[in-house]
Amino acid sequence: MTSTLLDLVSKGPKIVDLGRQLTTGMPQSPNHPQFWHTLPRRHGDEVRSDGGSAANDMITMGTHVGTHIDALAHVSQDGELFGGADAAHSCMGGKYVEHGVHTIAPMIRRGLLLDVPKYKGLNRLDGGYEITPEDLQRTARNQGISVGNGDVVLIRSGWGQKFAEGAAYVGAESGVPGVSKDGAVWLADRGIHAAGADTIAFERLAPGQGHSTLPAHRVLLVESGIYIIEAMDLEELSDLGLYEFLFVLVPLNIFGATGSPVRPLAVVEA
Amino acid sequence: MTSTLLDLVSKGPKIVDLGRQLTTGMPQSPNHPQFWHTLPRRHGDEVRSDGGSAANDMITMGTHVGTHIDALAHVSQDGELFGGADAAHSCMGGKYVEHGVHTIAPMIRRGLLLDVPKYKGLNRLDGGYEITPEDLQRTARNQGISVGNGDVVLIRSGWGQKFAEGAAYVGAESGVPGVSKDGAVWLADRGIHAAGADTIAFERLAPGQGHSTLPAHRVLLVESGIYIIEAMDLEELSDLGLYEFLFVLVPLNIFGATGSPVRPLAVVEA
Amino acid sequence: MTSTLLDLVSKGPKIVDLGRQLTTGMPQSPNHPQFWHTLPRRHGDEVRSDGGSAANDMITMGTHVGTHIDALAHVSQDGELFGGADAAHSCMGGKYVEHGVHTIAPMIRRGLLLDVPKYKGLNRLDGGYEITPEDLQRTARNQGISVGNGDVVLIRSGWGQKFAEGAAYVGAESGVPGVSKDGAVWLADRGIHAAGADTIAFERLAPGQGHSTLPAHRVLLVESGIYIIEAMDLEELSDLGLYEFLFVLVPLNIFGATGSPVRPLAVVEA
Amino acid sequence: MTSTLLDLVSKGPKIVDLGRQLTTGMPQSPNHPQFWHTLPRRHGDEVRSDGGSAANDMITMGTHVGTHIDALAHVSQDGELFGGADAAHSCMGGKYVEHGVHTIAPMIRRGLLLDVPKYKGLNRLDGGYEITPEDLQRTARNQGISVGNGDVVLIRSGWGQKFAEGAAYVGAESGVPGVSKDGAVWLADRGIHAAGADTIAFERLAPGQGHSTLPAHRVLLVESGIYIIEAMDLEELSDLGLYEFLFVLVPLNIFGATGSPVRPLAVVEA
Repeated sequence: MTSTLLDLVSKGPKIVDLGRQLTTGMPQSPNHPQFWHTLPRRHGDEVRSDGGSAANDMITMGTHVGTHIDALAHVSQDGELFGGADAAHSCMGGKYVEHGVHTIAPMIRRGLLLDVPKYKGLNRLDGGYEITPEDLQRTARNQGISVGNGDVVLIRSGWGQKFAEGAAYVGAESGVPGVSKDGAVWLADRGIHAAGADTIAFERLAPGQGHSTLPAHRVLLVESGIYIIEAMDLEELSDLGLYEFLFVLVPLNIFGATGSPVRPLAVVEA
Repeated sequence: MTSTLLDLVSKGPKIVDLGRQLTTGMPQSPNHPQFWHTLPRRHGDEVRSDGGSAANDMITMGTHVGTHIDALAHVSQDGELFGGADAAHSCMGGKYVEHGVHTIAPMIRRGLLLDVPKYKGLNRLDGGYEITPEDLQRTARNQGISVGNGDVVLIRSGWGQKFAEGAAYVGAESGVPGVSKDGAVWLADRGIHAAGADTIAFERLAPGQGHSTLPAHRVLLVESGIYIIEAMDLEELSDLGLYEFLFVLVPLNIFGATGSPVRPLAVVEA
Repeated sequence: MTSTLLDLVSKGPKIVDLGRQLTTGMPQSPNHPQFWHTLPRRHGDEVRSDGGSAANDMITMGTHVGTHIDALAHVSQDGELFGGADAAHSCMGGKYVEHGVHTIAPMIRRGLLLDVPKYKGLNRLDGGYEITPEDLQRTARNQGISVGNGDVVLIRSGWGQKFAEGAAYVGAESGVPGVSKDGAVWLADRGIHAAGADTIAFERLAPGQGHSTLPAHRVLLVESGIYIIEAMDLEELSDLGLYEFLFVLVPLNIFGATGSPVRPLAVVEA
Repeated sequence: MTSTLLDLVSKGPKIVDLGRQLTTGMPQSPNHPQFWHTLPRRHGDEVRSDGGSAANDMITMGTHVGTHIDALAHVSQDGELFGGADAAHSCMGGKYVEHGVHTIAPMIRRGLLLDVPKYKGLNRLDGGYEITPEDLQRTARNQGISVGNGDVVLIRSGWGQKFAEGAAYVGAESGVPGVSKDGAVWLADRGIHAAGADTIAFERLAPGQGHSTLPAHRVLLVESGIYIIEAMDLEELSDLGLYEFLFVLVPLNIFGATGSPVRPLAVVEA
């Protein structure tokens, strides 16, 4: 029976959209094909004799564009994916048969926000700032929450405020705040299911260094089997002070891909 | 507080995936750019000095591919979209600013399945069969459910069994079963929020006629502001006999597009 | 000095266009991404304050679309490309570094047309007809030309008349006329530089068999290093009775690709 | 008869490639979809039972990428294209039926190089330098050539030396050298057929201004019906001191597009 669920829904739950709008020209990693949307056919281009017409779209994109999730197949270390899967053999016929994004089950889970700058009394963290295990621990304690097994943990840096600025958000020169190896280990030790951030690469990028090394990706994706969600919009959650919620994320079921654009939601009861 | 929601989740709700897997070569309407997925960079193509590597993807597609939702901007009649919006002026700078898919709010709603062939004692309906208002009415009554305001109504024809066959699913020669104008009016009269089907065009296609006229699209999208979801996988729901559920659908937030691939879910309590 | 060339040009040479127009929906092999062209920005979408505007395009496609050339990297046999190059190692970083289309020099060469149906007194050859070495030999003799080293040889079947019909041109059911292994060996024995045809796959396709085996591709591309040009328009050359001409073909210089759309020309003096 | 042409060819003409190699990541205007090339299927992904396999490609791109030609439909002024064509009505069904790139005939014409920096004793012109009518006039005189009706005139700035540097070539900060309105009028007054340059926008870009106004485009494309070729490689021509040559350019015949990538050639007798 679904009566309790439907009762809750009938009261109009609060839904907070954690995804960025997909627009041509939005900031994204230069390592992936740009998101482009165009209309091959607009209304008026071809009208049927009965006065009806249909408009349509064409999109080209990488999968790591906009708010997106990294499948475990995205990153390898020393020729292996998570669980020791051979990175070369995992790709059959041009598809990551193992650990592709089609293997990520839709998530309806407990979600948590760790609002690090709010805990520190800042508007946002600086470019290149490394979020340490102590930052994570103290933020959780300060917020009165405890990170548990199977949770989805969203780490706010405040850097998402720069999304509309484009290149500044990518932060090639300034660097970008985020966890690094130690923070990733702290998260993995708690058995979380997925980790998200409001930045383009999830992890700390040093000023002027770009994506030269990505230790948190290695710890989470390759060593721990924990999904990473990037370029989230965590500002509204922070404004509302919502630290615990129902987290909903449904990746596109793209066979063999290394990631998918997503539109995650935080849901709380009315 | 979200304690009830999280309690339900902690018990492990049943999630039924209503979306088709996106694969190159899957059946889709010939009116839209084909879905193609490819890996520009595979593991091994470029390995960093620290032994790490990242694989990535490129996708080109229309938005009406795989399981997908039609935005109200998809169809016009006599130069107008829903609510009398001017179809030409609704497109600004190459984007449907009005009624684009970015205007569809994520759905967490009551969902219903109308399993027409099961009610009729059939495996599936025939190509070209028109699902009438009486079919809808009797199926609902037989299942003991009542279609209500704001519901998402999924109409099973059984035609989804042919998805793996490719061209047979598109049904250019055989026709495809579905509602037509009268069925759409019946749905609209009940004030539903969205209607879905397990076929490529939602509505009845006569054998050999293709998409020459689409009266149900006009009734639902243009006259009633009701979204249409196509190419759903409704077989598991039917097998489980689940006629009422929490329906979750999160379209990609593509600014100005006429649709989006989606992966809808039916959720019931454990 | 270029005085003779420029003199010839000043007299207005006759240029016969041997390429098909690229249009969305034209017939092409289903093995390659469809050609799609769309206008992201049309005049009027964004007008600068000075009254100027620029329209632009987006294209997605395979490279074996429209009239196109096959690079030697397109086909391998038993793991090897032409000259024994290892097919796996020839691909570095996701590009065919060896034998990619970037290695094809622009062609300004002697071109020949072998108009097989005209020699046979036919309008066009039948689907599935195999053009034999004898056909090639006798057509050349009848036309008073001799195939020589370094030539580009275009073999007309008349099947190009079906290009506008779409699926009939692809010929999945009817088969398609063309050379097979023996004809390819005959061409290779003469040391030609490239071979072209007015069909989608260059070689004979048996009715109902599709592209299941491609022996002429193996002989020409893998064993002989001879380029293949497909889907040419040879009707005008035939109508004009031009059997010998200056052949001009300039592939796009796409690093590491297996082919390129091209627009070959036959040029004769005024 | 084509004997003279074929005689010239048999001696092995010198062919100078004026096109840039198309590679993912090459510099291009940010106003157009990026060029991306990828291999959906590599050798080894799928091998037929007879040991053969075929690799293929997928490309997404704008048409104004790499070395490319602007069709007259690319630019409008006050709602009109060249010859007073209505910019809105020229687009039918999502294609520039008038003045699209399909209307550009293949070019086999007299070509001229105006090597401005060589005349001035410079390696290359500075960012933002405006090439004046006097520069053009004196360079031609110095080189002993005269610009005539129907010629294709290539204007070298030396900026092409920066192509491999990427962003520096685009020159957003530095500006880019080129003709402006006056230089374009000088070219148009001589009745040339097309004008080319070794820069991304053909015309002078002021430092820090980007493509805010494009007066030479207006003069050439809209007022004079003269095609523009951009991002050419003119370094080898300059090194060889070749100022007059047979110019060969064959645009892709893309119905209704505003431009095409091209690979122009300069041909001289052996």
